[in-house]
Amino acid sequence: MFMHVQRLINEIVPDEPDPAAANALQEGLGGQFGEMRTMMQYLFQAFNFRGATGKPYRDLLYGVGTEEIAHVELIATTISRLLDGSPQYKGKATKPVDEPGKGGATPLSIALDHSNIHHYLVGAQGALPVDAAGNPWSGSYVYNSGNLVLDLLYNLMLESTGRLQKCRIYEMTDNKTARATIAYLIVRDQAHENAYAKALESLGINWGATLPIPKTNAEQFPEVKKLLDQGLHLKQYTFSADNLSEAGKIYRGTAPASMDGGELTTQTAPEGFPMDIAVERPEEFGPGLDPELLALVQATAELELKDADDPLVAAKKK
Amino acid sequence: MFMHVQRLINEIVPDEPDPAAANALQEGLGGQFGEMRTMMQYLFQAFNFRGATGKPYRDLLYGVGTEEIAHVELIATTISRLLDGSPQYKGKATKPVDEPGKGGATPLSIALDHSNIHHYLVGAQGALPVDAAGNPWSGSYVYNSGNLVLDLLYNLMLESTGRLQKCRIYEMTDNKTARATIAYLIVRDQAHENAYAKALESLGINWGATLPIPKTNAEQFPEVKKLLDQGLHLKQYTFSADNLSEAGKIYRGTAPASMDGGELTTQTAPEGFPMDIAVERPEEFGPGLDPELLALVQATAELELKDADDPLVAAKKK
Amino acid sequence: MFMHVQRLINEIVPDEPDPAAANALQEGLGGQFGEMRTMMQYLFQAFNFRGATGKPYRDLLYGVGTEEIAHVELIATTISRLLDGSPQYKGKATKPVDEPGKGGATPLSIALDHSNIHHYLVGAQGALPVDAAGNPWSGSYVYNSGNLVLDLLYNLMLESTGRLQKCRIYEMTDNKTARATIAYLIVRDQAHENAYAKALESLGINWGATLPIPKTNAEQFPEVKKLLDQGLHLKQYTFSADNLSEAGKIYRGTAPASMDGGELTTQTAPEGFPMDIAVERPEEFGPGLDPELLALVQATAELELKDADDPLVAAKKK
Amino acid sequence: MFMHVQRLINEIVPDEPDPAAANALQEGLGGQFGEMRTMMQYLFQAFNFRGATGKPYRDLLYGVGTEEIAHVELIATTISRLLDGSPQYKGKATKPVDEPGKGGATPLSIALDHSNIHHYLVGAQGALPVDAAGNPWSGSYVYNSGNLVLDLLYNLMLESTGRLQKCRIYEMTDNKTARATIAYLIVRDQAHENAYAKALESLGINWGATLPIPKTNAEQFPEVKKLLDQGLHLKQYTFSADNLSEAGKIYRGTAPASMDGGELTTQTAPEGFPMDIAVERPEEFGPGLDPELLALVQATAELELKDADDPLVAAKKK
Amino acid sequence: MFMHVQRLINEIVPDEPDPAAANALQEGLGGQFGEMRTMMQYLFQAFNFRGATGKPYRDLLYGVGTEEIAHVELIATTISRLLDGSPQYKGKATKPVDEPGKGGATPLSIALDHSNIHHYLVGAQGALPVDAAGNPWSGSYVYNSGNLVLDLLYNLMLESTGRLQKCRIYEMTDNKTARATIAYLIVRDQAHENAYAKALESLGINWGATLPIPKTNAEQFPEVKKLLDQGLHLKQYTFSADNLSEAGKIYRGTAPASMDGGELTTQTAPEGFPMDIAVERPEEFGPGLDPELLALVQATAELELKDADDPLVAAKKK
Amino acid sequence: MFMHVQRLINEIVPDEPDPAAANALQEGLGGQFGEMRTMMQYLFQAFNFRGATGKPYRDLLYGVGTEEIAHVELIATTISRLLDGSPQYKGKATKPVDEPGKGGATPLSIALDHSNIHHYLVGAQGALPVDAAGNPWSGSYVYNSGNLVLDLLYNLMLESTGRLQKCRIYEMTDNKTARATIAYLIVRDQAHENAYAKALESLGINWGATLPIPKTNAEQFPEVKKLLDQGLHLKQYTFSADNLSEAGKIYRGTAPASMDGGELTTQTAPEGFPMDIAVERPEEFGPGLDPELLALVQATAELELKDADDPLVAAKKK
Repeated sequence: MFMHVQRLINEIVPDEPDPAAANALQEGLGGQFGEMRTMMQYLFQAFNFRGATGKPYRDLLYGVGTEEIAHVELIATTISRLLDGSPQYKGKATKPVDEPGKGGATPLSIALDHSNIHHYLVGAQGALPVDAAGNPWSGSYVYNSGNLVLDLLYNLMLESTGRLQKCRIYEMTDNKTARATIAYLIVRDQAHENAYAKALESLGINWGATLPIPKTNAEQFPEVKKLLDQGLHLKQYTFSADNLSEAGKIYRGTAPASMDGGELTTQTAPEGFPMDIAVERPEEFGPGLDPELLALVQATAELELKDADDPLVAAKKK
Repeated sequence: MFMHVQRLINEIVPDEPDPAAANALQEGLGGQFGEMRTMMQYLFQAFNFRGATGKPYRDLLYGVGTEEIAHVELIATTISRLLDGSPQYKGKATKPVDEPGKGGATPLSIALDHSNIHHYLVGAQGALPVDAAGNPWSGSYVYNSGNLVLDLLYNLMLESTGRLQKCRIYEMTDNKTARATIAYLIVRDQAHENAYAKALESLGINWGATLPIPKTNAEQFPEVKKLLDQGLHLKQYTFSADNLSEAGKIYRGTAPASMDGGELTTQTAPEGFPMDIAVERPEEFGPGLDPELLALVQATAELELKDADDPLVAAKKK
Repeated sequence: MFMHVQRLINEIVPDEPDPAAANALQEGLGGQFGEMRTMMQYLFQAFNFRGATGKPYRDLLYGVGTEEIAHVELIATTISRLLDGSPQYKGKATKPVDEPGKGGATPLSIALDHSNIHHYLVGAQGALPVDAAGNPWSGSYVYNSGNLVLDLLYNLMLESTGRLQKCRIYEMTDNKTARATIAYLIVRDQAHENAYAKALESLGINWGATLPIPKTNAEQFPEVKKLLDQGLHLKQYTFSADNLSEAGKIYRGTAPASMDGGELTTQTAPEGFPMDIAVERPEEFGPGLDPELLALVQATAELELKDADDPLVAAKKK
Repeated sequence: MFMHVQRLINEIVPDEPDPAAANALQEGLGGQFGEMRTMMQYLFQAFNFRGATGKPYRDLLYGVGTEEIAHVELIATTISRLLDGSPQYKGKATKPVDEPGKGGATPLSIALDHSNIHHYLVGAQGALPVDAAGNPWSGSYVYNSGNLVLDLLYNLMLESTGRLQKCRIYEMTDNKTARATIAYLIVRDQAHENAYAKALESLGINWGATLPIPKTNAEQFPEVKKLLDQGLHLKQYTFSADNLSEAGKIYRGTAPASMDGGELTTQTAPEGFPMDIAVERPEEFGPGLDPELLALVQATAELELKDADDPLVAAKKK
Repeated sequence: MFMHVQRLINEIVPDEPDPAAANALQEGLGGQFGEMRTMMQYLFQAFNFRGATGKPYRDLLYGVGTEEIAHVELIATTISRLLDGSPQYKGKATKPVDEPGKGGATPLSIALDHSNIHHYLVGAQGALPVDAAGNPWSGSYVYNSGNLVLDLLYNLMLESTGRLQKCRIYEMTDNKTARATIAYLIVRDQAHENAYAKALESLGINWGATLPIPKTNAEQFPEVKKLLDQGLHLKQYTFSADNLSEAGKIYRGTAPASMDGGELTTQTAPEGFPMDIAVERPEEFGPGLDPELLALVQATAELELKDADDPLVAAKKK
Repeated sequence: MFMHVQRLINEIVPDEPDPAAANALQEGLGGQFGEMRTMMQYLFQAFNFRGATGKPYRDLLYGVGTEEIAHVELIATTISRLLDGSPQYKGKATKPVDEPGKGGATPLSIALDHSNIHHYLVGAQGALPVDAAGNPWSGSYVYNSGNLVLDLLYNLMLESTGRLQKCRIYEMTDNKTARATIAYLIVRDQAHENAYAKALESLGINWGATLPIPKTNAEQFPEVKKLLDQGLHLKQYTFSADNLSEAGKIYRGTAPASMDGGELTTQTAPEGFPMDIAVERPEEFGPGLDPELLALVQATAELELKDADDPLVAAKKK
């Protein structure tokens, strides 16, 4: 079973909307080497795991797999924030649709030549389960051979490729929202490389100076360097609510995928950061509860919903 | 963020291996209306949610979405158990491969005319992220229009269709392992129908006698009746580790998708059932840690792994 | 615009249910060279047609394309009839679900080892838009190069391949329902080969003795021979409700794809055959209007529906 | 069986070529919620329909399904007109290819940064069976559960989503050709929402003020308002050539998906608008009958084709 | 550039037709880890190679990639031979179609419940570019990150997975034709594991006792043991027609993926085995040149074709 | 079996990087009518060929199929050269990553609005197995009906469509690198049209003036004219290393797909042009052997690699 915590695993740093950056980040969400894939791959490997003596390996897969769900949440929310408001539509919030067509106005014209048109047409300025070229995520990406050594080797290659692609995305944009999330995921990928490389070390491989693959010298990216200095690439969370995870039996000792050979440690979970909720976008006909529905809800269901005086709501409306 | 608990949301009832039943259950895992889809759809709707006043609706989506991850875990594990050992291969556990080709033996010949050949060829008698006809799961299944009413209407239809298909699967097999999981999921789908139908009621719809759709009279399936008698279709879990979920503001009052109109209630999470780990299958070359690797691990990594005297391990070897 | 006539283009000959034959026919419906593809290909070629001087060619495409919609209707209905009742479930019609799980009964167990499991699990013993191997139909099949000669050449090859595959399907089964529809479509494919071959003759090609490709000697299939004797391969329908089609300017003279060189003629439409409606199947939870819903409909909507005394309804219930 | 009428269901309003608008409209043609999908979904539901007492429901599906074929024709033709001539190539019509490469001329350079490159490279400035992101249409989109209530619920959601997406497309462009077709389809989608909502009302649902979903206030789009004022959202065509359709038994009474509650009525078919044929485009090597072929045709086939004096041909050549 | 040699890289050992074995082998041809994929992956890596100092690595990729084309040829031909004649149709060769429908004969009924129905319906008892579950091969399988170390690591994992799957296929069937080809490919995969493992050793990795992954003890399969005894897993062909390949600079020294540590050597190409041509199958309407066409060819083209007295032809007809 | 020659079948003419042209050329590589498809289609037709009397036809398929592998190599290399260096990144070659993020530099920002983003994100400025709209190549493209006449007819249409598309690509760009490769492939497609048209002539078809389809008057493209003047459209290579090919029995006599009716001849192979290797691109983290790895290789593996004094290396570094 899984539990949800209403905190994001990393902070969404504010900056201007940027649909092109949002689209590049889609590769990290729904791409062949993105977070949906790592999530599903590690969970399937954990569900189908064989051999009770290998429980620490299974628990490692469960821990990283559970973290990847939080990464899916983080990168999807980041994409959503990068898209949100990009059309710069100034319709009044009190009217669900502010006469968009009057006089030939085209509030969504941005969709025709920015990002993936589906971000505005199929979704409502939100993340999609597709890659940066628009291909939907596919179950055929998931690798689970049933042979532990092969699965670990694939996972190492998968994390390395994910990191390689994120380093390239970092170089594509200087939007702060995009870079903060990407930098965080680069360092976490390196932590996961350490996890799988260490597991393979326990099975006899000596990586020499090969790892990390690729040697991106990523510490030269300022946001990445800051996190490396904090040792975020040397820590693994178990996300084990009942603390039964034995992943720490593997994730300890010297880090193989690290150029300075730090010591690996585990902890249950990071503290996280507050989540907020995006505003409504009338030009997408994307109301949640517009005032009319809100009144209806309060009348028929007697729900005690937050009203406009709520500070969170008020803050978002500015 | 998400946390993992090492408990299954429902019990895996033991019975004989049954690859045909396993394959039918794949529709419930990786099919267009299966658990991977409900999981991803509700999580994307939660990530992209708009309108802070609608937080109870978002939290409902998060709660059901988090439950669906546990359903993916449950049905994947069920499929894995239904496949496990189906080839009836009697190779000794102490030798990783017991001369399978000697004298023309064909320990995996079952793969040629049972189930999906990939269950033995690509996976190792484990669940795959595909449907019952072998199509890989696709991100194009996820529906998230950004309009709350439409999303809720789709979700209601999705749960109803999922339940319809599971009732058909129930009728395809009398394997106890398969039926226990299917019956549990039928009743939980009905709970989720209640969730989305209730949310739509709050927006003005009166369902009359239309719900549940379909009227499967499923209480005539003994395993389903037992769970309905326990009121499992009237309960929703928030899976909210920090108890910040406001889903209970919606999920309360009379159940719309229930023929006897019970009262809806919420709780954090069910107690769950113990998880075990499958044995190794040498005929799949699917060792985790065969004795040789185990020795290596103990030598190089000094891991304190369970040994063969461990009761869990011993129990599985019988 | 298009109009519908409540008649099938050919008769559905009765025989026993036969899910294996139904599945083979799926290739003719949703396969790469099946009727959905010919329909879409010719209609797209007609919609995108260039050059007003070529109107007879466009009208030929519209005529054959419109006929293909009727072929989709015919083969889908045939598949539906071949599947209908194949589980041999004897539940009483007056109860929507006749306690299917009682005592472990498995009314849909046939789904596990016959046909495509989706015929019982996703559909309700009805046709699906997929091929005989279960692949969904794809828009990438449609060929419309925008060059008239190439489009005609492709269409000739397409009809020939469709006929080749149908001759193979004929050889796979002796079910009368399946063979009657297949035989009809074989002969109509030959008529369409004549159409495209003739159009290419008008552009300078002399086919010699090459056509029909393949030389299936199909007149040795008794059902095919009967239709050839009626000259059905020499006739083209315009399906032109306003009789503005000029297809007859091309479809006339000696038939190129015919071993005995008959004369081609056009007419508006065939007379057709009556359509009926399948019975409800409670084991699929596939009621349309079960008695309860029927009562509801009559109460709330005051619809004047046929009742059980209606001869058509009564006939089906026997 | 189906018949074709050489009239478009709505007028193509002239404006400048606009490949970006053309591409956005592809979602309405080949997208997951576009016209190819509604067409196929309703026709499959009609072909596989169960229960003779429900004939009015089946006939409703046939009627809307047949209308959708005309919508496919309308939107495909609109896309074709929006693309046609967009490269602004001025080669003389009398020479099939006017030395395009001479001196490095690049008559199709527009393809590299406008629209979908396949519009110029695979098609010849014509519509394709793909969505706005270039994904080919898939048979997996078609929903036909075999349970009437679920099918109707899905259809209502499908029409609402189609309308939502078209409202977004309307906001993306002010091209008159695009907007006229989109506005027409928005209003027809609302008519179809009325059809399915009404059918569900007959089964006991009271929609309250929920419908139409979404509340787009679309009457504020001038082209839409004009059609609503004509009551086009309250009328359903049977497209029943033999007038055997009983759809009118359902489609009558007060409109549920309409904010002013008009009365629903049926009629056989609209009058329609004349169709024309696009000119040839030598830069696509897309001749139908260039003069050389025309001469050949007249010589070998003695076809009585329209010549250059034909007013329709002359009109297009201006 | 590439050249073809009319020799197969290994012998096709004769045995009875076996469509189930043929279908299992499809995974090795068109599966995600099959020969079409290794071929394409290594060739793309070679085409896109960066860094002139790394020419030996590029040449290694070219050599293995070129060998994989021969493997595609070998396994496709093996599948073709396993399917060929499986329907046991005894029609006379002198008549293209021997009245297949007469009296209800169903010469292709085997297609309904053996193998992949497309083997008889779309192909004519020949290999298809699909996997064992019928999924078409996809370009999305090809991995070419542009980072040499990652590409090599992926290739090692790819060869190991291919070998794992082939060991499983070996265990599914005892058909001699299937096993001979599978055994050969198992050993060649091990040679390629040596290639990529050695290349990674040159970059600093010490594999310890980890390789080969998996430890299949495959020498216990008699056909595999025979080839290992010949040292076939220690040899790499350059397939370099101009002998410019520098792959031998890497492929030398001690074998890492070999339990007995033999010495690696390179040579240009193996000697190969004669190819033959399958007979015609009238029940598939799959004539090449039936007597009628043969006469035509000889008349019109004056081709000097082999006639029925040719020993090769005669041998096949027995 | 196949052999590789380290020569390209045509010269890569130098010009500036041009990602838009590169992307258009992807259609010719991985599109439905591109070189990967012709390669696979002809090879599968050769592998599955039936009828020993038809060996010249099989050998023709082998010859053209082998040539298509060289075309895949040529067009992939061309795309790679068109992409290579397009980001204009000036990082020093001696440092693997030249502080790309310092001060917000975005060396790969070109990826956001040029070409296919995957060219920079998934690949490293290299060719991908996808079409110009980003769709991965699919095995479902391959046509091999098993009927010789149909296969030949399809192949003729395939070559004609490939040529049509390449003529359109030629008109999209005046980049010399792109046009040189495209022009070469246009003329080779015409040679292959001659091959299949001639084979069909031998079976009785008289093409009249229909061929070549389309009549592109391509001799007006200067690069094409030059090659036509050399008669490159009248020559077919057997690529038969052992000279056992009998393709010359068909490919001789008057050319059908040629407006001036030249004489067809065969030869073994063209001379070809030198291949080079692209430089490393640190901004893609795409080193092959950076200096550090090079040192490592030389230390551990004692490989005799080219060093920086090598003229080829030096030339590329300028």
